[in-house]
Amino acid sequence: MKCRMCGAKASVNLRQHHMALCKDHFLEWVPAQTERFIKKYAMFIRDEKILVAVSGGKDSLSLWDILQRLGYQADGLYICLGIDEGIQYSAESQRLAESFAAGRGLRLHVVDIQKEYKDAIPVLTLKNRRGKGKDCSICGLVKRHEMNRIARDFGYDVLATGHNLDDEAATLFGNTLNWAGEYLLRQGPVLARKPGLARKVKPLCRLYERDMLAYALLRNIEYIYDECPLSVGAASIQYKELLNRLENQRPGAKLSFYLSFLEARQNGLFIERQAIQAELHPCPICGQPTSAEGLCSFCRMVTPSLK
Amino acid sequence: MKCRMCGAKASVNLRQHHMALCKDHFLEWVPAQTERFIKKYAMFIRDEKILVAVSGGKDSLSLWDILQRLGYQADGLYICLGIDEGIQYSAESQRLAESFAAGRGLRLHVVDIQKEYKDAIPVLTLKNRRGKGKDCSICGLVKRHEMNRIARDFGYDVLATGHNLDDEAATLFGNTLNWAGEYLLRQGPVLARKPGLARKVKPLCRLYERDMLAYALLRNIEYIYDECPLSVGAASIQYKELLNRLENQRPGAKLSFYLSFLEARQNGLFIERQAIQAELHPCPICGQPTSAEGLCSFCRMVTPSLK
Repeated sequence: MKCRMCGAKASVNLRQHHMALCKDHFLEWVPAQTERFIKKYAMFIRDEKILVAVSGGKDSLSLWDILQRLGYQADGLYICLGIDEGIQYSAESQRLAESFAAGRGLRLHVVDIQKEYKDAIPVLTLKNRRGKGKDCSICGLVKRHEMNRIARDFGYDVLATGHNLDDEAATLFGNTLNWAGEYLLRQGPVLARKPGLARKVKPLCRLYERDMLAYALLRNIEYIYDECPLSVGAASIQYKELLNRLENQRPGAKLSFYLSFLEARQNGLFIERQAIQAELHPCPICGQPTSAEGLCSFCRMVTPSLK
Repeated sequence: MKCRMCGAKASVNLRQHHMALCKDHFLEWVPAQTERFIKKYAMFIRDEKILVAVSGGKDSLSLWDILQRLGYQADGLYICLGIDEGIQYSAESQRLAESFAAGRGLRLHVVDIQKEYKDAIPVLTLKNRRGKGKDCSICGLVKRHEMNRIARDFGYDVLATGHNLDDEAATLFGNTLNWAGEYLLRQGPVLARKPGLARKVKPLCRLYERDMLAYALLRNIEYIYDECPLSVGAASIQYKELLNRLENQRPGAKLSFYLSFLEARQNGLFIERQAIQAELHPCPICGQPTSAEGLCSFCRMVTPSLK
């Protein structure tokens, strides 16, 4: 296999694009593609302040690296979830995020959930257990709340996450399996802007997970290899496996699934409802917009007096 | 495992319904369920004349059996496609369909494609090859045309096919993978009525393939075991395998995928377009309604002078 650009020995085979690239051209291609998607989906412009949510994993650290290389003003946010499970998952993730930031002179905000709200994620999920597979949904609620809070308090225009194509395709697949209309229509490279919340964007949404892995390795980015120990058996992981089988049979199937969804949506396949946004009001404790009556879901969860 | 109804030893485990049944109760349950779906989706009433498309396989012969047991007026239609491939696929299918009809004193129409149109399916697909995996689409075009023709010529109100849940879920999955709006919105237990065409219905659309297999076996229905030899490697078979994996992880997932689609559609997830129906006109050769300019796709294919 030879590099499409220079004919040298290829390092990465992008089967979905019928193209292989050498290390140097692959490391140019990934930021160029990311820049293309940032512009295509109107994610942000160079004047805007970006907060990148970094987990210590390959995708978010690579995203931060790419945004720096592209010349965007991007700070990081690490949220310490307090997950240990015998492998010091959170401590090690934090060390890697801090080491990445320090090595490049970047600003990293660190939020410690246990310090802020008394309980870390494993305790919060135990206290709020709503059934199997719900740990991830509680952790997601916490992370969304904290990302929104830091973005608002420090005046960031944009919140960028490292979701890659495999993440997006798995989410889409899950929402398609039960035709969850509201969730289906909420998915995309840019989350609909709500008053009081930073714009949420996913610049890597069209890049395959295996390619982001190659990027992190070839850029010598040190990242945490383990999946979150609390996510074992999560539906999203099963969906990723199924989509990988499909991808093996039909290279490009994952990308086509996601892109044709975005296209069908733009072409008016769905009846889009605007009602939800109109009903938002600020939570009396944290001030974040919520559609719930009274407190937002996060404040209801962490406010002990209401238990 | 015991029968939910009578406590005897169960023969069939319906995991998706958390229920097991003995042979007798299972053989009552299948027609009762079918009757429920016929009514729920307003497929047909007892006064109407039904034509069942029988392939010689377990689903269509079982459907014919069920409709008879339920007291509907159902004749059969066997379309000889002329597929041999060393296993006498069509000849054996025809023998089984004819033997089923004769044994029960039922009326069976037989159409021989080669006699009617000079070429059997293997030749038609060779002459009209549009690329890998297109054989099934040409065969489907031929079968739809002939089913419509016989239904019209003999005055049937309704055309019933043996599509089971696995068929429907695989079709839905395929149409969802590329978000094929027009095809997505055309799918359902009853195909939208078009002027000049019999109503198309799928009474088994909520019954699992494995349960239809159990029904055919327990009713001693002799059916052709082989899949069509031309369908090897078809996308629909890959989709069925993926959905079976999902079903093994989450019993009921296939049913939920299909039902939640129907429900979301009914609840207005999609923008349904009526435009297509308005543009239909009769084909100058066969008279069947078509949206194409001039001849319908079928007549374009089988009319040699136009090649």
